[in-house]
Amino acid sequence: MALRRDDIGFGGYTLLQDDSAFCYGVDAVLLADLARCGPADRVMDLGTGNGIVPLIIHARYTPASITGLEVQNSVFELALANVSHNELSDRIKIVKSDVLDVRRLFPAESFTVVTCNPPYTEKGRGIPGSNPVLFTARHETTAAFSDFAAAASWLLPKGGRFCVVHRPSRLADIFESCRACGMEPKILRMVAPHAGAEANIVLVETVKGAGKELKVLPELVVRNADGSYTDEIEKIYCRK
Amino acid sequence: MALRRDDIGFGGYTLLQDDSAFCYGVDAVLLADLARCGPADRVMDLGTGNGIVPLIIHARYTPASITGLEVQNSVFELALANVSHNELSDRIKIVKSDVLDVRRLFPAESFTVVTCNPPYTEKGRGIPGSNPVLFTARHETTAAFSDFAAAASWLLPKGGRFCVVHRPSRLADIFESCRACGMEPKILRMVAPHAGAEANIVLVETVKGAGKELKVLPELVVRNADGSYTDEIEKIYCRK
Repeated sequence: MALRRDDIGFGGYTLLQDDSAFCYGVDAVLLADLARCGPADRVMDLGTGNGIVPLIIHARYTPASITGLEVQNSVFELALANVSHNELSDRIKIVKSDVLDVRRLFPAESFTVVTCNPPYTEKGRGIPGSNPVLFTARHETTAAFSDFAAAASWLLPKGGRFCVVHRPSRLADIFESCRACGMEPKILRMVAPHAGAEANIVLVETVKGAGKELKVLPELVVRNADGSYTDEIEKIYCRK
Repeated sequence: MALRRDDIGFGGYTLLQDDSAFCYGVDAVLLADLARCGPADRVMDLGTGNGIVPLIIHARYTPASITGLEVQNSVFELALANVSHNELSDRIKIVKSDVLDVRRLFPAESFTVVTCNPPYTEKGRGIPGSNPVLFTARHETTAAFSDFAAAASWLLPKGGRFCVVHRPSRLADIFESCRACGMEPKILRMVAPHAGAEANIVLVETVKGAGKELKVLPELVVRNADGSYTDEIEKIYCRK
């Protein structure tokens, strides 16, 4: 492990992350933005990694409760340390578990918002490297996207929101898995690294038991031609 | 009927269309562009309306054959008149039939590209107006999108392409219906009326029997701030 501590830019919190494994990027910030929680929300972050999404969500919205679920032991320990170091142990609960076990661990419909920044690469694709922690974070090893969707659907009541950040190449899988467990795609936003470039991130919000009608938001562009963040990204980072 | 004749801007062809019913727009031009046929392609346009998509496809690509299918009698007659007036009766065949009947009319796998600009509004939604021809062109009355997809899948061999222009709000339905009959979404492109606006058109290409992996192309913007077409649209209209 090559640990480093960074200011996350939200709420004055800092994050210990493993340089050799998985450092958070704009994905986590966009996912927390998509979640736009209210004070009464009970939030679950599936596959929370080092806990970055719960930290940003707490800093931005202070919902009633936040739980993060992480299966990999070393990353789970990091998330625990991050919550503790930022003195948020009474606000953010980190649970070590596989998404396949949520039915055993949590009552049905016990959350109102579920966020998820899942492994991007489908099972059976990609080549395992020398770092198994990184491989598990990026590839569907223990759980497929359909397992994350099924877990979310178990945890949410009708009207509950499942917010996902993923690769655009997986969009059909996301829609299919969510619909298969009663969650209807309601918001879609493509995120492109530069204007005119192909999107490399997709944001999807599905709502349990909702009627059909997908709203496609204008494409979000991350960087200007000079490499600086666009105004919209600066706003999402709460700096404008 | 309030008929008018317009230059379609491709191949010197003109189009007789019913002003009170349905006049073609950028949708048809984008669909023909998505189809990008080769000389050996056998093209079927499902729900061809006044025949605009076959005319543009012929002008742009001159594929081996083009067939247009239209169920509404008055619109079918217009399509026939348009093909005949442009002296293309030996190149474009117009067939009066419901998409539900393609299995009876055409052998399986008898086309290589199927295009479709289907009714945009789902069955049971929308209010019937005083013009039943227009209502049928815009609403799923006789056939749902899943019927168009099933027809395309029947007509295409493995590797055959089904190109669709539709409303972004129906994207999950498009993916679901296509996958349900073995056609995998491979290309997705959102089309926005202006930069920064929500997309109001979506272009989707699915390929029969293809593996998973969706390519999302950069958003296509139709008009500049001054109302003129963007360079990319001018290119699609073959004017640049």
